[in-house]
Amino acid sequence: MPVPSSTHGHPKMGLVAFIWCIVLTFASAGEAVKSKEASWTGSLLVVPMDGSHWTGVKALAEEMGRRGHKVTVVIPEVSVLLGPGKHYVTRTFPVLYGKQQLDELQARNAQVMESKQLPLMEKISTRFSNMRKFVNLQRATAESLLLNQELVDFLRKQNFDAVLTSPAVPTGAILAYNLSLPAVYMLRGLPCGLDSVATACPNPPSYIPRFFTHSSDRMSFGQRVLNVLVSMLEPLLCRLIYWTTEDVASRFMQRDVSVTEVLSSGALWLLRYDFTLEFPKPLMPNMVLIGGINCAIRHPLTKEVEEFVNGSGEHGIVVFSLGSLVSSMPKEKADIFFKAFSMIPQRVLWRYTGEIPNNVPENVKLMKWLPQNDLLGHPKARAFITHGGTHGIYEGICHGVPMVMLPLFGDQADNVHRVATRGVGVILSIHDITVETLLDALNSVINNSSYKQKMQKLSAIHNDRPIQPLDLAVFWTEFVMRHKGADHLRPAAHELNWLQYHSLDVIGFMLLIVLIVTLAMLKCCSLCWRRCCRKTQKRKED
Amino acid sequence: MPVPSSTHGHPKMGLVAFIWCIVLTFASAGEAVKSKEASWTGSLLVVPMDGSHWTGVKALAEEMGRRGHKVTVVIPEVSVLLGPGKHYVTRTFPVLYGKQQLDELQARNAQVMESKQLPLMEKISTRFSNMRKFVNLQRATAESLLLNQELVDFLRKQNFDAVLTSPAVPTGAILAYNLSLPAVYMLRGLPCGLDSVATACPNPPSYIPRFFTHSSDRMSFGQRVLNVLVSMLEPLLCRLIYWTTEDVASRFMQRDVSVTEVLSSGALWLLRYDFTLEFPKPLMPNMVLIGGINCAIRHPLTKEVEEFVNGSGEHGIVVFSLGSLVSSMPKEKADIFFKAFSMIPQRVLWRYTGEIPNNVPENVKLMKWLPQNDLLGHPKARAFITHGGTHGIYEGICHGVPMVMLPLFGDQADNVHRVATRGVGVILSIHDITVETLLDALNSVINNSSYKQKMQKLSAIHNDRPIQPLDLAVFWTEFVMRHKGADHLRPAAHELNWLQYHSLDVIGFMLLIVLIVTLAMLKCCSLCWRRCCRKTQKRKED
Repeated sequence: MPVPSSTHGHPKMGLVAFIWCIVLTFASAGEAVKSKEASWTGSLLVVPMDGSHWTGVKALAEEMGRRGHKVTVVIPEVSVLLGPGKHYVTRTFPVLYGKQQLDELQARNAQVMESKQLPLMEKISTRFSNMRKFVNLQRATAESLLLNQELVDFLRKQNFDAVLTSPAVPTGAILAYNLSLPAVYMLRGLPCGLDSVATACPNPPSYIPRFFTHSSDRMSFGQRVLNVLVSMLEPLLCRLIYWTTEDVASRFMQRDVSVTEVLSSGALWLLRYDFTLEFPKPLMPNMVLIGGINCAIRHPLTKEVEEFVNGSGEHGIVVFSLGSLVSSMPKEKADIFFKAFSMIPQRVLWRYTGEIPNNVPENVKLMKWLPQNDLLGHPKARAFITHGGTHGIYEGICHGVPMVMLPLFGDQADNVHRVATRGVGVILSIHDITVETLLDALNSVINNSSYKQKMQKLSAIHNDRPIQPLDLAVFWTEFVMRHKGADHLRPAAHELNWLQYHSLDVIGFMLLIVLIVTLAMLKCCSLCWRRCCRKTQKRKED
Repeated sequence: MPVPSSTHGHPKMGLVAFIWCIVLTFASAGEAVKSKEASWTGSLLVVPMDGSHWTGVKALAEEMGRRGHKVTVVIPEVSVLLGPGKHYVTRTFPVLYGKQQLDELQARNAQVMESKQLPLMEKISTRFSNMRKFVNLQRATAESLLLNQELVDFLRKQNFDAVLTSPAVPTGAILAYNLSLPAVYMLRGLPCGLDSVATACPNPPSYIPRFFTHSSDRMSFGQRVLNVLVSMLEPLLCRLIYWTTEDVASRFMQRDVSVTEVLSSGALWLLRYDFTLEFPKPLMPNMVLIGGINCAIRHPLTKEVEEFVNGSGEHGIVVFSLGSLVSSMPKEKADIFFKAFSMIPQRVLWRYTGEIPNNVPENVKLMKWLPQNDLLGHPKARAFITHGGTHGIYEGICHGVPMVMLPLFGDQADNVHRVATRGVGVILSIHDITVETLLDALNSVINNSSYKQKMQKLSAIHNDRPIQPLDLAVFWTEFVMRHKGADHLRPAAHELNWLQYHSLDVIGFMLLIVLIVTLAMLKCCSLCWRRCCRKTQKRKED
């Protein structure tokens, strides 16, 4: 870049040089940014899943759009959280259900907070009924997308470079498979271990606890027995969860197709965890860890919230949210929280959409929407009351805020157990919570320095990485788009059946050889023996 | 940073502003560099292994020193390649062997190039004898280091943050284990699968070919049988290779200690490969791939070499090296190369320390030391004749130069097989090489566009990464130093024995339960049956 050869002589040259200086400084800064961001751009199709999964997928879709890629997000006309963004275009498709059905399903989520635990049989029947409703909804969404010929034809014509999707509901994966597009999956894990099967990733039940067992990676013999049993039942659970999807997929593809076949075609798996939360376990080359992807995306607090937070003084604040799917709770339950909060010196910010009682303590601020990550990142954050979803937990770890955890459903019970084994959080049951237990838990995580110290150490490890998770997710999505997949990361294990993978055919063959050789040797020995005996007998006879 | 509030008024202000501008620009550039390079520095002990392993370890040691860490490299007084560097200090220790013994061992390496293949038994006996000599040399080095009380005491007092070492010869690993320092290992793999055992990394023989089998990841049934057999023999091979080291380690630690125990204490494994060369396989969380670590380290060619290279015109050059351990060859073998080279239009740069004959063709330049990576990175590089060491192969892949490969020993035969399966190189045997086969091979890789195209694709994939391998290696070494290890990446599998790991105790227990239940049920049935029969009989009798 040429610079003015002389700045002497004219008094105004000072101003010119100064402006030049600013231009030069900004230009060099701009160049640095430009050189870092790839000049290559492509076209990405995003088929997201409703609910908390959307948080990570949206962050990546927005960032891909911001970096110049053409990003198209396909969403149903009716959803809980899905919606438009700044850097991508949305294409909606009609569905056969309405907002009311979704609200009903959400209301059912709040049922888990009923005062009393349900009897076992009723609990199982409620869970089964909820799961059936969820599966039916997913089926309806999948049908509305995949059997919408006009939409699929439109998408086919767009010549996308890749598809980004949540494989927990594999509609996007099926679409990618059918359009022969490389798929990038973003997930935390699949409930029946299907991620391990579809990536051919070893998953020994001896030290990798299964979902819903609440075990750690160091299991007693009894826990290992339970873990092996659960791992044996996983294929059945997969069948239960995915049979309706397989039915839709088979109709769409016009041939029998299994969800495992579809998912194992995925080019890259972006996993929303790392080993500050997860127990160390094997990975495959096409798995990339992006735990804490949403932590770096921060915005300033509104003036009102900032004032409330700063007004907390040395005691700081408590952030309270039960996630995107549960925002209200039964009155008698809420009263416990209000009472406990009135007895602590901290200020509390609570995501709460229920009926607001008259006796809300002064130190509590109820908000319909909570800037959770921004609040946890505030220096005044002292504790985080959470349901234990992975997004929230990673935000807590990222900002080093100890947690009080109230798991509600899904993988939350396992998540909170992982946090508790690290000594950075306390688990409470929403069913039998009392003012005392809540106060005790808050007191521990805020005033017992062990929680804060351990959390700071965990946070330091989590944040000490060579590249930000969002940048890593962008890099690998772009990689798949640039190279039309990631075939060089696909293990040959996909081409082996179960017997071959475990070398059982080889071992069987070897045993057969050993058996034949042993039998042949025995036969030889017995023949020799007989001949010898006969000779000796003959000699004796002679 | 404050800026001058006004630059009007005085003619000299133009100059001031200009200088300020330059300062500001450089300062902001400096800040960017500084913020990227960690301000934290520590103290690193490096215990390298002689031979080609040194290339990668030296690159990392130099870079760590350059970034401000105190790096101490401990090397024997006599070695083939080890030596001082710009950014680290060396501490030598006396050994009981001399330069002559090392030269003899090196001369033995050249023996593999003898014109005729040896008879099988002689070949085995030669290899065994060479291995014995190598193992004895390693033992002598290990003893000289570990049993040198004064040196060990000195190193203990330095309060290093971590140890960087090649675990293929585990002297450094033993030292780190004894000093209770976290160890960072750099390697390509261990010959008897010990890396898988020591990292608890699954290593199914059904699709992960073992060293020396020359198989790919897609094996026939026969190849899988061979692979399973080799994997069964691996523990024996490990014993053979490491028993002398275990003996020294036990004397040093004053208790029985196995190499597996030592190596499994390693905090981090920097693996010198990626999946452009290696077949995709499982990884553990504490494994970091740094294949191609030395590719980015480039220097300008000397004027003389640059002129020779540029004089090659459109035909370009061929780079020829058989690695750091073999630099000369028998005369009759060399003649084949000279003759073939005289018949090609390319110019050849050959690392050659043997006797220089009179009839060296004009297009051939013999050099005692070859700037291999710089030459391969030159736009005129057309082909690379190599023995197939991993460093050289990755340099070839990095710069997209197709190869003619002459494997000599160690893992080279497997490496070249991996390259050949990618269609980017031709394998020749040094034993039965002729002018015709060499010309054919060179002609193929230079003029058959398929090789160049496939190599460019492979090179593009290899070079398309979010972070340079050297930076990644620095990051993880610093990580281990900062956090005193990487415990959060250590799988609980290390605490299980073989039976537990494979859940065989659990399966046995379950079978026992099934057996007991079945027997109990059979007993019940038989009791019921008998009672029924008795009643019927009684009734009949009545």
